[in-house]
Amino acid sequence: MEDLSRNQAVRYWKTGRVEAVSDGVFAIALTLLVIDIRVAPGEYRHLVHALVEEWPGYLAYLTSFVTIGGVWLAHHSLFTRLKFIDSWLLTINLVLLMAVAFLPFPTGVLAQALNSSAEAQDSAVVFYGISALSVELVLGFLEHYPETRLGLTTDDGTREPARHTRHRRITISTIAYAVAIPVGLTLPDVAALAYLAIAIGIVGVTASQANVAPRKPKRR
Amino acid sequence: MEDLSRNQAVRYWKTGRVEAVSDGVFAIALTLLVIDIRVAPGEYRHLVHALVEEWPGYLAYLTSFVTIGGVWLAHHSLFTRLKFIDSWLLTINLVLLMAVAFLPFPTGVLAQALNSSAEAQDSAVVFYGISALSVELVLGFLEHYPETRLGLTTDDGTREPARHTRHRRITISTIAYAVAIPVGLTLPDVAALAYLAIAIGIVGVTASQANVAPRKPKRR
Amino acid sequence: MEDLSRNQAVRYWKTGRVEAVSDGVFAIALTLLVIDIRVAPGEYRHLVHALVEEWPGYLAYLTSFVTIGGVWLAHHSLFTRLKFIDSWLLTINLVLLMAVAFLPFPTGVLAQALNSSAEAQDSAVVFYGISALSVELVLGFLEHYPETRLGLTTDDGTREPARHTRHRRITISTIAYAVAIPVGLTLPDVAALAYLAIAIGIVGVTASQANVAPRKPKRR
Amino acid sequence: MEDLSRNQAVRYWKTGRVEAVSDGVFAIALTLLVIDIRVAPGEYRHLVHALVEEWPGYLAYLTSFVTIGGVWLAHHSLFTRLKFIDSWLLTINLVLLMAVAFLPFPTGVLAQALNSSAEAQDSAVVFYGISALSVELVLGFLEHYPETRLGLTTDDGTREPARHTRHRRITISTIAYAVAIPVGLTLPDVAALAYLAIAIGIVGVTASQANVAPRKPKRR
Repeated sequence: MEDLSRNQAVRYWKTGRVEAVSDGVFAIALTLLVIDIRVAPGEYRHLVHALVEEWPGYLAYLTSFVTIGGVWLAHHSLFTRLKFIDSWLLTINLVLLMAVAFLPFPTGVLAQALNSSAEAQDSAVVFYGISALSVELVLGFLEHYPETRLGLTTDDGTREPARHTRHRRITISTIAYAVAIPVGLTLPDVAALAYLAIAIGIVGVTASQANVAPRKPKRR
Repeated sequence: MEDLSRNQAVRYWKTGRVEAVSDGVFAIALTLLVIDIRVAPGEYRHLVHALVEEWPGYLAYLTSFVTIGGVWLAHHSLFTRLKFIDSWLLTINLVLLMAVAFLPFPTGVLAQALNSSAEAQDSAVVFYGISALSVELVLGFLEHYPETRLGLTTDDGTREPARHTRHRRITISTIAYAVAIPVGLTLPDVAALAYLAIAIGIVGVTASQANVAPRKPKRR
Repeated sequence: MEDLSRNQAVRYWKTGRVEAVSDGVFAIALTLLVIDIRVAPGEYRHLVHALVEEWPGYLAYLTSFVTIGGVWLAHHSLFTRLKFIDSWLLTINLVLLMAVAFLPFPTGVLAQALNSSAEAQDSAVVFYGISALSVELVLGFLEHYPETRLGLTTDDGTREPARHTRHRRITISTIAYAVAIPVGLTLPDVAALAYLAIAIGIVGVTASQANVAPRKPKRR
Repeated sequence: MEDLSRNQAVRYWKTGRVEAVSDGVFAIALTLLVIDIRVAPGEYRHLVHALVEEWPGYLAYLTSFVTIGGVWLAHHSLFTRLKFIDSWLLTINLVLLMAVAFLPFPTGVLAQALNSSAEAQDSAVVFYGISALSVELVLGFLEHYPETRLGLTTDDGTREPARHTRHRRITISTIAYAVAIPVGLTLPDVAALAYLAIAIGIVGVTASQANVAPRKPKRR
């Protein structure tokens, strides 16, 4: 722990461009998800049927969109509380972006596998669950780290509520994924729906944190 | 309805990063539309013919570009009037982004189907129409919600004109899609052209609202 | 022409988010260009040969990157001089983004065609030339329009140099494309190289305009 | 060298939108890397095996993500020190973005080739190494140039540490790539791992520079 008084030579970065690149990665990862939803040229003869058969694609799209949306909410919430960024935070943030930008791959695998053999469904559901849980754990570490460095975060009474929300979110997501992933080995469809429910739950917990954000009226 | 006086502890988020991620999703959805316009390797022997045969791709590109452009205009217009964002607004905005980021899929389906069988054309036209109408309805709800929460929007005489524009846009688009979608079942080409006309009309109505935006000279 | 005095109720939009979405589209269009450079799975046995054979892809990538870069420079230069945006400017800007976001398609066609039959080369070169020229013309119109509306642009002595640069750029690009496109009908390789030369010339003319931008020291 | 006193008519651009478009290209290049990781439809019968067999794709993804992340860190670090941008800096920055946006292509080639013939592995490793080294050299030149123009950079005691970090990074990366590329001709797997190590080393060196960034408390 090191103290950063206002008059001391601060040796840290500002948050602006880190937010800009992170928002870019979040926005692109969100938008790339749709690329994996495709109707093969041969299926246009029975298009209604093909569009209905795409349901695993829609489910996977929805799940990953809500999952990444929840990560973005927590990221946004964290950065409103950050005053500076140090090189460790930069590095952890890069790892988080790497995990988020990777998510379209397990999403595509899940969407494809749900229309495929039972073995493929099992593997895809486990692969997706581990990927999503990894994102949540890296996110939790990104949020935890600044608390251990005095002076990185603002101290306006939002520390405790933020910590509380974070602990609640990490506990919920770890337990939920730890249950859903093994369930997926026998009931892959149930696990896929559970992932969506977990993502919605995380967004709910995180969005409610908005109400404890520091009071900063918008001036533009 | 709850009142947010200036001196009260405001428990809401600022709009900056929500705009940043939304703009990112809008920009990427706009740019991804071109990915579905493709000339197959075998068609390069008669390239002029192949480029002309791509007309449904150009029409679908144009229609979705104008549609998303119109959503962006309305989103921009709304956010110039917002002072804060609460957790419901965050959630509705996420749903809107999900619907916008999904649009490249029905766009690609429409482009492919217009060169395909009659049944595929009908299904694609209905699918596209429902997707585009859903975007408009979520947008309308996003615009409507802050009016029901005192203090979320600025009150500088722009509320009434904004509401008027919104009602006009939602009425026009709902009626127009409700007519165009069933027409598409027998005349898919006409419906595809109608979608473009609707999108242009919505941009026209929304862009004219620019003239009632609050007076804020640019200071950079 | 209408005069906008400072104390009058200004009925126009600010430029911030229009720049944000435009920058997003420019950045994505730039980055999507690389997607069309591909080595087919069967060509990995002779990878060196395959990488060399990709030269039309590299040339097309380079040309479109410089072309879009030049448009971005001019767009940036214009917006540093804009004080407000009206609904016509919004609409013209949307048309420009549509033309820029379309450019990856003729780029991919050109790259594919240069390794194909003579007829495909001719068609692709003409198609690319017309697409690139269209972008330049829409850009010229976007730059011209605010000059016809009193009060949209700052008046700090940069109007005349900006107009001069614009006229020079539009004249050069129109004449150059008008020569290169018909040449492409008999010498497609020469036309493809000419497009690159034109794009570099346009960036050169536009970047030199940087030196007449208004004096605004960076404050962050 | 030319002196820019504060009261003189400064003939240079601000850095804001150059950062915005650069951040956009960085974010999209980062996110596009995942597109090349794919499981072919026929491989879903043995999905676990297929996911494990994808390891060259994961390695290439990781390597390029860290490489581009390092470039972004250095770019960010440079721009916090820039006061203005001139037309040469704009041009060099465009070349850097071109090299960064190209990187997904050698990344995809490397991922494909590592599961292919020995000759393909050699070629892909050399191709990737040259591409990554080119990015580092253009970046070094982008950082070097403003030092030769008086007045472009802030002079707050950060010049010497920044120069030191830059020299260290360029020396390390040039030597490391110069060793790894020829090694790749006989041991392509070793070279691929070396590229990852080099990228991590560069991020380490660059991130530690964060600690000498000028003291600018965050005000939002």
